[in-house]
Amino acid sequence: MNAEIISVGTELLLGTTVNTDARDISLALAEIGINVFWHTVVGDNPARLTECVYRARNRADLIITTGGLGPTCDDLTKQVLARCFDRELYLDEEAERFVRDYFARRSNLRFTENNLQQAMLPKGCTMLPNDCGSAPGCMFQDSLVRVIMLPGPPRECNTMLRNYVIPYLRQLSGEVIRSHMVRMFGIGESAMETKLRDLMDGSNPTVAPYSKEGECMVRVTAKAGSEAECETLMAPVLEEILGRMKEHVYGVDCASMEQRVLQLLEEKNVSLAAAESCTGGLLAMRITEIPGASAHFKGGVTVYTEEAKTALLGIDPKYIQENGVVSMAVAGRMAKRVRKTLNSDLGVGITGWAGPDGDDVGTVFVGLAARGECYVRRLQLGNNTPRGKIRTQAVNNALDMIRRYLTGLDV
Amino acid sequence: MNAEIISVGTELLLGTTVNTDARDISLALAEIGINVFWHTVVGDNPARLTECVYRARNRADLIITTGGLGPTCDDLTKQVLARCFDRELYLDEEAERFVRDYFARRSNLRFTENNLQQAMLPKGCTMLPNDCGSAPGCMFQDSLVRVIMLPGPPRECNTMLRNYVIPYLRQLSGEVIRSHMVRMFGIGESAMETKLRDLMDGSNPTVAPYSKEGECMVRVTAKAGSEAECETLMAPVLEEILGRMKEHVYGVDCASMEQRVLQLLEEKNVSLAAAESCTGGLLAMRITEIPGASAHFKGGVTVYTEEAKTALLGIDPKYIQENGVVSMAVAGRMAKRVRKTLNSDLGVGITGWAGPDGDDVGTVFVGLAARGECYVRRLQLGNNTPRGKIRTQAVNNALDMIRRYLTGLDV
Repeated sequence: MNAEIISVGTELLLGTTVNTDARDISLALAEIGINVFWHTVVGDNPARLTECVYRARNRADLIITTGGLGPTCDDLTKQVLARCFDRELYLDEEAERFVRDYFARRSNLRFTENNLQQAMLPKGCTMLPNDCGSAPGCMFQDSLVRVIMLPGPPRECNTMLRNYVIPYLRQLSGEVIRSHMVRMFGIGESAMETKLRDLMDGSNPTVAPYSKEGECMVRVTAKAGSEAECETLMAPVLEEILGRMKEHVYGVDCASMEQRVLQLLEEKNVSLAAAESCTGGLLAMRITEIPGASAHFKGGVTVYTEEAKTALLGIDPKYIQENGVVSMAVAGRMAKRVRKTLNSDLGVGITGWAGPDGDDVGTVFVGLAARGECYVRRLQLGNNTPRGKIRTQAVNNALDMIRRYLTGLDV
Repeated sequence: MNAEIISVGTELLLGTTVNTDARDISLALAEIGINVFWHTVVGDNPARLTECVYRARNRADLIITTGGLGPTCDDLTKQVLARCFDRELYLDEEAERFVRDYFARRSNLRFTENNLQQAMLPKGCTMLPNDCGSAPGCMFQDSLVRVIMLPGPPRECNTMLRNYVIPYLRQLSGEVIRSHMVRMFGIGESAMETKLRDLMDGSNPTVAPYSKEGECMVRVTAKAGSEAECETLMAPVLEEILGRMKEHVYGVDCASMEQRVLQLLEEKNVSLAAAESCTGGLLAMRITEIPGASAHFKGGVTVYTEEAKTALLGIDPKYIQENGVVSMAVAGRMAKRVRKTLNSDLGVGITGWAGPDGDDVGTVFVGLAARGECYVRRLQLGNNTPRGKIRTQAVNNALDMIRRYLTGLDV
């Protein structure tokens, strides 16, 4: 099946919104083996949307639209799609019930008759419930093409997609698609590609490399008649990749480095505390983004000033002066002291120059302390590197050190 | 001038990358008054890219492509564009110098002859230097349409756009466009729209509302022969908006709430410290994202566990037990204690349930302490609200309290 995604919204063409809906839909369709050949973005303009729909009808089996469903845009998308496929709009009973219910359950919202516009659907539609908002989606099947209309707000779009659209599309196809993502740190994209190039020529499973903010990833994807067959096809390739990439691999199918670290802390029943200077709380923030982090992350300090390093960690100002605030010694001491202060098994200390001004921008020291041990990694991230990237890389390196320590690798 | 943006890259259709380039370009073009009517995304496929370029040539005066310039995609975009506009590719001298220089300045990269492919441009092109990477961009003018080719990696694309493309396009148009963004907090989108609806009917200046993660914004945009005329057109409308929205407005043309808060801390020469529980360092992280934050942000503690609240802030465990860890009393005490510990003028304390599990998810207390004063705001963010949103809203409220305190409003 070949799909085309049409996003409707002037805000996308003005650049005030980024088109994450098209990304979310593409990702979900790729997972179930539906090819996407085009994304098109049009404004809230009936003529251009019509042009776009006619073209899509000739080249795709599946059209998914996002946006243009609410009352603020006069339900543009439903109007145009109804006209393009020669269907009238009618008040759908199920949709009406959905909309009335939505308002009835919310004491702070007042139902007005014009809200019923949202329950007007093109003839022959199936309504798609909106679990996060008031505008239902809908879908219908024409002789040649399936049409699915989703709301524009990302949370509404993505929830409807995952809860209703993907299950529906999945049962249409007899084929099963499965994939695994191998995630790595500490190796560059081109070095990874060189090591895996021969594997990338295969067609089932396929092997595709990605990179993002210093991390490298490889996705292995197989198509077959059953899930088990997919796994059988992938197993030898995955084994080969893990064998070649070795300790650079921090996880398969895990969401992020912080997720992997938290999982290791749980497995080993180890607790963590962090003292951050140039990263200003980013490590703590990323770890505590994961529900349940409090069981193993005891807390952290953002010691952005030298005064705070003394007040919160009891580091002697003289020690800072002698060694320099950005130094191997101070990173190590921060790690040791935060470990002690918060009574945790591991302590991390990060100090560095995040820029944008200064000669040493990009120099960061990351310390990791355990009982009787302390390791410090020196990073040179380049003095043209933007502040945000330096902070992200510093935190990634701290997570990598924890992961390596907990899995018995050299830190 | 009407523009069309064509993004080339299979990774966009697979959903592994979100199309921020199209957003960045749209935003920059909107600022100089160039209309964008279409975004199209195609994969690394010459036939579909050709189809797309032919169509764009018929409906746009300006085509901007992103991606497909590097060696990994065989310079697809330049090849196809050269063919569509009947121009040969030749080795451009300036581009060759650029590429050779790029490698010469980097001791860790080895120049190989195939890198010169990046210096092959369609006949009649002007090279665009890449200030963040090795692949130069280029542009040419055909009888009917201007074509600009930019690299795909967001930083390279955006930098080339801002440094070379926008200045070039700006001098083509005699007209000047200026806009101001009014930013608000503490009012819902529909309430704001109701208050400003009549102003939104104007055509010069235009008034357009936006909302994002609990913040509301209004952009006022004018077109005229000069910058001064634009300002004259906008002044009465801006004044009207500020008059109606009053204390909800936290800034005009400022980047974010944290930027505004930091600016106020500087103006009033006031220092800040933060104690965060459920937000886990997000407030510290957002403030320290801004260069120079260390002058007024003394530091913070992430006291995710009760133990940490005692160890770092000296809060009596009995006090926590008696009041509950998520309570007005504990938020206030956290604010006071972090202020004292870090010797700052203001202290913030945040404690709450970020979920996803538990009956009280969405309940957050935000405390603000100054000398002899302490205010606590109670938030009920809803127990279906996702964890990330609760954390963001809690931090936004803390920033709002600081802003209101420092500008003499009721906290």
